[in-house]
Amino acid sequence: MINIEAILNEIQEEIQPYLYQGNIANYIPALAKVNPDQFAMSIILFDGSSYNIGCCDTKFSIQSISKVFTFTKSLNIYSKELYKRVGKEPSGNPFNSLVQLEYEKGIPRNPFINAGAIVVTDTLLSHYKSKDNTFDNVLNFIKNISDNQNISFDKEVCESEYEHGFRNLALANLMKSFGNIDNCVEDVVKTYFKNCSIAMSTKELARAMLFLANHGVDPITNHQYITSSQAKRVNSVMLTCGHYDASGEFAFHVGLPGKSGVGGGIVAVVPKIMSIAVFSPRLNSWGNSLAGTKALELFTTKSGLSIF
Amino acid sequence: MINIEAILNEIQEEIQPYLYQGNIANYIPALAKVNPDQFAMSIILFDGSSYNIGCCDTKFSIQSISKVFTFTKSLNIYSKELYKRVGKEPSGNPFNSLVQLEYEKGIPRNPFINAGAIVVTDTLLSHYKSKDNTFDNVLNFIKNISDNQNISFDKEVCESEYEHGFRNLALANLMKSFGNIDNCVEDVVKTYFKNCSIAMSTKELARAMLFLANHGVDPITNHQYITSSQAKRVNSVMLTCGHYDASGEFAFHVGLPGKSGVGGGIVAVVPKIMSIAVFSPRLNSWGNSLAGTKALELFTTKSGLSIF
Amino acid sequence: MINIEAILNEIQEEIQPYLYQGNIANYIPALAKVNPDQFAMSIILFDGSSYNIGCCDTKFSIQSISKVFTFTKSLNIYSKELYKRVGKEPSGNPFNSLVQLEYEKGIPRNPFINAGAIVVTDTLLSHYKSKDNTFDNVLNFIKNISDNQNISFDKEVCESEYEHGFRNLALANLMKSFGNIDNCVEDVVKTYFKNCSIAMSTKELARAMLFLANHGVDPITNHQYITSSQAKRVNSVMLTCGHYDASGEFAFHVGLPGKSGVGGGIVAVVPKIMSIAVFSPRLNSWGNSLAGTKALELFTTKSGLSIF
Amino acid sequence: MINIEAILNEIQEEIQPYLYQGNIANYIPALAKVNPDQFAMSIILFDGSSYNIGCCDTKFSIQSISKVFTFTKSLNIYSKELYKRVGKEPSGNPFNSLVQLEYEKGIPRNPFINAGAIVVTDTLLSHYKSKDNTFDNVLNFIKNISDNQNISFDKEVCESEYEHGFRNLALANLMKSFGNIDNCVEDVVKTYFKNCSIAMSTKELARAMLFLANHGVDPITNHQYITSSQAKRVNSVMLTCGHYDASGEFAFHVGLPGKSGVGGGIVAVVPKIMSIAVFSPRLNSWGNSLAGTKALELFTTKSGLSIF
Repeated sequence: MINIEAILNEIQEEIQPYLYQGNIANYIPALAKVNPDQFAMSIILFDGSSYNIGCCDTKFSIQSISKVFTFTKSLNIYSKELYKRVGKEPSGNPFNSLVQLEYEKGIPRNPFINAGAIVVTDTLLSHYKSKDNTFDNVLNFIKNISDNQNISFDKEVCESEYEHGFRNLALANLMKSFGNIDNCVEDVVKTYFKNCSIAMSTKELARAMLFLANHGVDPITNHQYITSSQAKRVNSVMLTCGHYDASGEFAFHVGLPGKSGVGGGIVAVVPKIMSIAVFSPRLNSWGNSLAGTKALELFTTKSGLSIF
Repeated sequence: MINIEAILNEIQEEIQPYLYQGNIANYIPALAKVNPDQFAMSIILFDGSSYNIGCCDTKFSIQSISKVFTFTKSLNIYSKELYKRVGKEPSGNPFNSLVQLEYEKGIPRNPFINAGAIVVTDTLLSHYKSKDNTFDNVLNFIKNISDNQNISFDKEVCESEYEHGFRNLALANLMKSFGNIDNCVEDVVKTYFKNCSIAMSTKELARAMLFLANHGVDPITNHQYITSSQAKRVNSVMLTCGHYDASGEFAFHVGLPGKSGVGGGIVAVVPKIMSIAVFSPRLNSWGNSLAGTKALELFTTKSGLSIF
Repeated sequence: MINIEAILNEIQEEIQPYLYQGNIANYIPALAKVNPDQFAMSIILFDGSSYNIGCCDTKFSIQSISKVFTFTKSLNIYSKELYKRVGKEPSGNPFNSLVQLEYEKGIPRNPFINAGAIVVTDTLLSHYKSKDNTFDNVLNFIKNISDNQNISFDKEVCESEYEHGFRNLALANLMKSFGNIDNCVEDVVKTYFKNCSIAMSTKELARAMLFLANHGVDPITNHQYITSSQAKRVNSVMLTCGHYDASGEFAFHVGLPGKSGVGGGIVAVVPKIMSIAVFSPRLNSWGNSLAGTKALELFTTKSGLSIF
Repeated sequence: MINIEAILNEIQEEIQPYLYQGNIANYIPALAKVNPDQFAMSIILFDGSSYNIGCCDTKFSIQSISKVFTFTKSLNIYSKELYKRVGKEPSGNPFNSLVQLEYEKGIPRNPFINAGAIVVTDTLLSHYKSKDNTFDNVLNFIKNISDNQNISFDKEVCESEYEHGFRNLALANLMKSFGNIDNCVEDVVKTYFKNCSIAMSTKELARAMLFLANHGVDPITNHQYITSSQAKRVNSVMLTCGHYDASGEFAFHVGLPGKSGVGGGIVAVVPKIMSIAVFSPRLNSWGNSLAGTKALELFTTKSGLSIF
């Protein structure tokens, strides 16, 4: 059996030179204010035992990691019907490109590019009727899977996102013109940004992902959130599409289904074994946490847990 | 010298079979209500003598013909500075495509595609400060060049456009994300639609275009609206970009600088001689008035006034 | 009446500062060897009187100007059938882009981008059966319209083009895969390059274009080469598509139907009055002769002969 | 422990209704002649024990499966230098699109789209100097990893491919124009087609892939063909890019690194455990073997060996 504690101690040491490389996201002022040199890594096993290094209780903006939770929720509600409105294939384009969306008549490639997550948010809005009710349900879902009621969103980040969210408004309006947004564009985009501005620690994120490592069933509470097939789908979309235009790179270096956010967080699952979350705000050139990606790579190399 | 009256009488007769071909614009309910079988043609010479056939006093929605007036006005205010924000070349894409706009970093190809006219509207908004003041100045400009105070906009068309204007909102938001829209997106797009919903008759439109046939100077009032060079620019952009993806077709068949609108109107100028307006609501497959284009073709063929 | 001689003398003087701006085409060694500081301009009227300045007898590579002659020839053979295989609209993309060609299933936008001229060459090859016979007929056609048997091609340029012609081979193979090239790709592209490497002086080019200024009839020999409608088509395509991605710019500054080549030549017609050719090897950023474009602009400004 | 024999027997039965769905590749006559209703599946473990159902000794055209072998070979020769010329990310476009290639300056997205495999072939040609020597080395490599000297190519398929290979010639010429093909285009494309026309049975293919399931070392002969890191790379590229525009779909349904060919074959590896090959000529709408994909899905479902 692998010695997780020993491996984390090694990572703690070896990650140091990477903590000062890369740049934090600065497209909105609220994200640019974060301390750039932070690092945390949390692992949790099916028996609930957890291993942490660094600032594992520091909350940060989960940003695109929220896409995993909204996709899961919508898949649970709509099942395969969801795929009529959002695809499941890698995009081969930057995360916010309009080109493919126009050629493909407003159907986004997958739920992890912005356009896809906006459509997913629209499906939730249709189900939960109001903006507030939708966000409350998304947040409650995250609280439930985290087994933790103390999770909320960062109002400043949310407002800052919306003030600079013209490209996402362009994506949403374009999809609306193709008939692929059912609700008011402003409501959809505001809810999308609110989801992105939820703040969590690595300890909380690792806990929240555990059900995805276990066929949709939380191994601690035994609550089934989604079917085994749906969990397989979420994991396979994370592996092929979870890191924008660097998904292939991540698959090679890390070899685990995962999803990153520009806030510096990355979540990953080792199917049937554990879930992992890392945090470090400086990003590499593809917009993924530089030290976070490296820490995950070190982990799978040392533990031999890469799926390849 | 050509006998305009005789030519118009011939056109009146020959155009009959074309009046029932094509379909009216129906993307907004307000435009779909127009009587589809109407036809009018108006010509005005530099001495003020005018020639008309059909329902030449019927007002219709000028739609994209407004782009000629807003481009003229903005060119007059900003001169060559305007070209930093909007190009002067044909687009080779449908009038409302986002693809080229994304690859070219939010700079529209020319002022006669939607994105270009939206940028032009934004420049006017920056100059005239408020939405209402901007529209008033555009309308006043049109009243002045038409020598006619009795021109207004159709409120129902305007509101209907905005309710279905998601693609234009997508274009405007995309350009805003590239920094090429300075004002509030909603204000810009609303003003753009208000300009499009101005209603005029062919008699009024022909009169309004006369200064463009005469180097920027109204030959009747002798008022100079723009420089000779600017008038040449407006005319050359009309010739190369005036009819979306059928500009080459129009240049060949009609051989005059012109601009069409989905309301069924087309304006054209014979440089140094006259201006012309036609109206017939049914459109060909490129979105230009079918009988209107044919009438103009018959006119240049019979009169020998094509520029080629 | 305008004094052409006086205008040309003024141009001769005013053009000096422009002769040393821009860069010659250097994508093939054979073109890069030309003396870059040359200039010539030739005008010919319907009565045969001709006006020349500069090195008007120096032969240079006509390059894309050959597209006017092959399009004319193919239009004469196939009439409207030709448009099933090549369009008539501006492209809004660089002259050798494959993107539009792929999205539009191998049908080039117009006969003046490379793909279009390659299809036109293929239609001639189908008509004249062999590579040699096709080129001989193209050359003979040029000799006839020039009323000059002393015209040939530059073998070194031709071979140099083919050695570096990978992008044109890519275009031709792509169109072949869509079924829009009937003959052997290598034969078509070699013939295309041979046409491009025909060498002519401005005096010869001005003479060759005269029939296009006169509805398809050579005003000196009275020979009708194409119908009036076909001549109108060639002229309107020159105006809207004659200068790649600077066609709108050329339409504004010069205001005449024209066609440029990377060898430094430009031809233009003043419908019903004259034809013009200029030559100066240094190119502007769009690949058109810098001093040549300026000389034409000076000419239409001074003579008032712009069509706008 | 799973009972492979029992699982294969179940698959043999359950696959029947799928054998008559889909259509065989018919873009070349030579492929269209194959018996469409065939099926075979072969599995081999690290100890050499093998399990087979169906026509497991029938040789078929491996087509794009050859891309795995040429990529492996080139990676072994050039190591990371290879990535300067070919990427490692999913493409989000059909396998033979030119659009992305033009925008990305002739650098293909990954080695498993046609353009990428053509570049890989070019690197081998540079290394082995001649066309024949290159193919001999590729074939020998395949013979070695298969531990089987009785493998050859199908001359008729190879010639038929080249006769209809215009799009691949377009891709190669486009890359050559960007400087990303070093050898003669014709030689590169001919060698590429020769590689594609190698014929193998599922038994042979499963054996050939075994080293990729075991970190680059053949577990039977103990020969190390590539490093562990290179094997991880080949597997991760297979998972994210192995099935053209259906890679995400395959990752979900099958959950194994794999590569398909239009000849009806698919290879896959279960890291650290086994390699698998299936064959059935009828293809689904993405060009992958329909029954073959289904058989692999049944296998991972029944065995629980999906990586997710």
